[in-house]
This record gives sequence, structure tokens and C-alpha cells, in this order.
Amino acid sequence: MKKIINRPADFVDETMEGIVAACGDHIRFLNGDRRVLISGYPVKKGKVGIVTAGGSGHLPLFLGYVGAGMADACAVGNVFASPAYTKMAAAIRAADSGAGVLCLYGNYGGDRMNFEQAIEDCAFDGIRCRSVRACDDASSAPKENAGKRRGVAGIFYAYKCAGAAADQMRDLDAVAAVAEKAAANTRTMGVALTPCIVPEAGRPTFAIAEDEMEVGMGIHGEKGITVEKLMTADRTAGLLMERLLDDMPLPDGSEVSVLVNGLGGTPAEELFIVYRRVARILEERGVKVFMPHVGEYATAMEMAGLSVTLFRLDDELKELLRAPACTPFYTNANK
Amino acid sequence: MKKIINRPADFVDETMEGIVAACGDHIRFLNGDRRVLISGYPVKKGKVGIVTAGGSGHLPLFLGYVGAGMADACAVGNVFASPAYTKMAAAIRAADSGAGVLCLYGNYGGDRMNFEQAIEDCAFDGIRCRSVRACDDASSAPKENAGKRRGVAGIFYAYKCAGAAADQMRDLDAVAAVAEKAAANTRTMGVALTPCIVPEAGRPTFAIAEDEMEVGMGIHGEKGITVEKLMTADRTAGLLMERLLDDMPLPDGSEVSVLVNGLGGTPAEELFIVYRRVARILEERGVKVFMPHVGEYATAMEMAGLSVTLFRLDDELKELLRAPACTPFYTNANK
Repeated sequence: MKKIINRPADFVDETMEGIVAACGDHIRFLNGDRRVLISGYPVKKGKVGIVTAGGSGHLPLFLGYVGAGMADACAVGNVFASPAYTKMAAAIRAADSGAGVLCLYGNYGGDRMNFEQAIEDCAFDGIRCRSVRACDDASSAPKENAGKRRGVAGIFYAYKCAGAAADQMRDLDAVAAVAEKAAANTRTMGVALTPCIVPEAGRPTFAIAEDEMEVGMGIHGEKGITVEKLMTADRTAGLLMERLLDDMPLPDGSEVSVLVNGLGGTPAEELFIVYRRVARILEERGVKVFMPHVGEYATAMEMAGLSVTLFRLDDELKELLRAPACTPFYTNANK
Repeated sequence: MKKIINRPADFVDETMEGIVAACGDHIRFLNGDRRVLISGYPVKKGKVGIVTAGGSGHLPLFLGYVGAGMADACAVGNVFASPAYTKMAAAIRAADSGAGVLCLYGNYGGDRMNFEQAIEDCAFDGIRCRSVRACDDASSAPKENAGKRRGVAGIFYAYKCAGAAADQMRDLDAVAAVAEKAAANTRTMGVALTPCIVPEAGRPTFAIAEDEMEVGMGIHGEKGITVEKLMTADRTAGLLMERLLDDMPLPDGSEVSVLVNGLGGTPAEELFIVYRRVARILEERGVKVFMPHVGEYATAMEMAGLSVTLFRLDDELKELLRAPACTPFYTNANK
């Protein structure tokens, strides 16, 4: 795991500078602050703002979905660490245009605590906020305790649908309801084959043997459910799908979007090999796939591995999913 | 370098099945042949066809740029191996709608030989073809012998501009002239930090020490110019830019597009850190950057490393670069 970086302490700020240098048509810093990114698109007066936040090291998460049709602002933390609540509050203030702000983020203790503080601060200024947390990682807590689950790649679907709902000028409660429905209809499970190295720590996040894979590992290297011998792509897909479908049964005739997400070090070819098997499993069960996504949507730097997300659709979510969006890392050119 | 695959012998066909399963709105197999991919968009009668081809293992190259506004068809070889000429001929026949076909591909011996045979075959059917080869890898032969250089990530720009010219219904010679100008204005140089493993071979493509990087290495592991101690991102950017600008001087006031391309195993964060320095170097020289691209455009599976491409622009190339395009791996929603 060799890195092409400068001083580890500059990793996040320099990444941010590069992103704004490259994607300045979509996004910009708020008042020059490299830890608060806001959309460069004109703000529709009266549109509900959508703010997210999270640690660095997960590109495109979280900031990559700031732009048109998804999130409006993002507070950026150090690698794998929550940003300060003051940055979240600044993002909320910047995203509010009078209709309130949805805070949509992954279910991690630090982010939750800091967002609560930021929302309290902004309430003094008369900004109304609602919070919705992605808890899509089905391996991180049992079904009975789904509110304790971590948010991983599946948050993409909540951004997309809530962003489209806000673009339709729905009010804050309606946008929050869409985000809640999207989050409730999303399940993710992944496998990790290698750890990654946090630049300032300089050592791997975990250890795993050359012939093993960790099932259900989090995107910060949180422990999974089991360590298994390295499986074929088809068996890996089968294992993940079995657990996902057990957690969120999909009756014959259901419709889903599928996201096969690479964790950073795994080539696109392998993601498509896994998607091929996932699509067959769904077909055999009579489940229809709408707008599948295969690629890197939430990474852990150079970690090898992938996750599979199922997003159960209804007519409203389908329409919102296919609405146009344009951000540095996601473009949907549908008209 | 652990892989999530099934039988190595099935790697390419299964990748192709996954791609068509996931991206069936853009592309399809020609008559069910998993080695000939064609655009699923309606063919404009009288549009010049654009056909490419190349070995697998480089996603998004080569097939990822088949769609609207770029290439019309692609013949797909085994990992790092040229496809059979019969597949190229089938792609040419499928892409011809009466105005002839531009064969646009990377400058590799096998691809060149097979395309020549395919073009000869298609000439019997009265299909007129022109060939343009990308030779952008500035490290692979000296400047005086630029026709011997390999094609790497910079071929993206030739696809984009030639595809837009064909969409404007220019004739075959005009489209070929655009591709030639784009190819002539493109230079790429990269560094590799780790090898990759060809699934059927099962061993790394080359060996490199943990504290070293290979400068100028090809995307199949072809030997580079020098092996250096691992450098910082800024020094790596400086080294690549120095060589690129020496090869293609850019006077004050020039305009370029820049592509910082990840080879597969390198996280997006690092690409942006390198882009940040590249942008500064260009700014210091009075060179303006138009539509930079940062991401994975040409990979070598899990190889860690990156390349920097400079694409010198004029008004025509700028207009063609910003024209809309929509393929499984590249969307430009500009209107």
C-alpha cells in the first residue's frame, strides 16, 4: 500500500484543493474554508437545503454528491473522523434559503453528536432542520436493532432521492420523508480483502491473511461478521445476496436498484463479474432491476473489496432516482 | 493482489456479461457475441462510424467509450491481448452506415496488424475505413520516433473529439483529421507503484521494491524509463510535468485539458492531490486548463499508480471536447 501523497497531515486539505481545482464548475469552498464544500449551482429560492458531512478517505463519499439535484453542502472531516460541529453549522447556514435544511448523513456516533450540536446552534438563527441517518450496513447490527447500523454506500440512494424531491420544491417534512423511506428501503453488505492505511497513522487498519476475506466489514475497517476463505465471485455474490434478502425480503414482482460498489482497490472488471451474478439471482427470484449502478460510490482509500446494495423501489422512488443530477462524481443526464 | 473472480478463463466473458447486464441502456452485444460490443443508441444514417478495439483489463478502456457521442463499436480481446481481426471486421461492419468507418485504437503491434486485416476484409464489402492510432505515451519512444509510441489514457481525448465530429455529420476524412489532430496534441506519462496480476497467468506482471516507483511504465507493465525511490505527490507531478512539457512545449497563453488517470489501485484522493500540483504548475506557466478530468480512464486492473495527460487545445478541439456524450463510463451533460 504505497501512497502518492505529500505530508500525511496535509492529505485532506490537499485533496480538497485538488477537488475544487478540478471540479470548480460544480462546487466551491464556503468562504475559502477547505472543510466546507458547497454547490456552485444557483440556489433556487425556497428549495429545501440538503447538508451532509463525514470523514475523508471515502471518495466519492461524502462531498462528491454535492452539486445539482443531490446535496447542497458538505462538512469535511479528517480521514475517517467526523468534522467539527462548527463546520456542519456553517454548511447548514449556507444551504438554507428559507425552507429549512435536511441533514442527511451516515449513522456514526461522532457525526450524530456533532450534527445535533450544529442543528441546535442553527435553531437559534431560526433555521429549521431535520435529520435522517443512513443505516444501510446490514452486517453492523441485527435487524431488531437496525437503528444502530452504520451508514455505508447505500446513502447514495438517499442523497439521490431526497435531492430530487428538494429540486421539486417539496417542503422540508416531505423531503425528510423521502430520505427516510429511501434509507429504510436500502440494505448493504460488503467483503473486504485488504486493509487500507490512514496516512497519519501509517499502518494498516486491520490484518487479514492472503487467502481470506472479511464478510460484513465496515468502511473504516470495523470488524465484520465472519472471516472466510477467499471465495469465487459467484459464491461471494451468493453469500451477500442471501444475507441481504434475508434482511429485506423481496417478493416476486418487486423492483430494486442495485449498487455494486468498489471499496477502492478492486478493479471495475471484478465489480461487473459480481454484478452479473447478482442480476441473475434477482432474475431467478422474479425481482426486476431498475437503473443498476456499478463503480466506486463509497471507498476506503486503497482497500480491496466491494459491497452490494439493494434499494427497494416504489413508483415515487423510481421517479426520483431517474431525475437529472450533476455533481463532480455523479451525472445522470436523463431528461 | 487478491481477486474476486470465478475461473480465470472466464474473466473476460463474465466481465462483458456484467457490463451488458448493467449498462444495457447504452450498449449491447453484436448478435450475442461477447467480444463485439456496439452502441445501443439509434444510428444516425450517414454518420461516420467509429470503431475501436483492444485487450481487456483496462476498464474503462476500450469498450467503456462506446455509446452516444464517442465510439460506435468495440472488439474485445483477452486480458492485455488484441482481439481477433474477425471481431474487428464485425465491429466495422456493424458501425458502418454508408459513410465509412474510422478505426481509432492504441498503437500496439497486435491491434495494428489485426485492424489492417479487418480493414482489408471490409474493403471487399465496399466499406471505406481510415485508421488513426493513439501514440500518447511519451515515455515509450523518443520524440523523434513518436510513431512508435504506445497509446494509453490519452486516447480518451481522441475518442471524445472524433466522436463529436462524427456526430456533427462530418465526412470520414474530416473525422479522421480531427482524430489525428487530437492524437498529435496529446502526451501522457505515468508512474506505477505496484504490478497487477493477469488472471490466467496468476503472477505479477513485474517486480518492484516497496519503496520504489517505476516512471514511464506502460499499462501492461512495459518497462519504464527509470526506477526511482517513491516520491511525494508534488515531486511526482513535477517530474511528469517536466517531461511532458519538454516533449510538447506549451507557450504562455496555451490552453489544455488535463487528465489525471488512476491505474486501478490508487485512491481518488491521491489523484486529486496530484491534480492540485499539476494545475499549479500550469498556472505558473500561464497555461489555462479547460475541462480537467480526474479519475480512472484507463487502468491495468489493480495496478497502483497514475498517469498525467496533457491535451493541447484549439478552438475546434475545445468545442468538440465539450459536446455532449453518454457512454457507460463517461457522461458529459453539457448542452
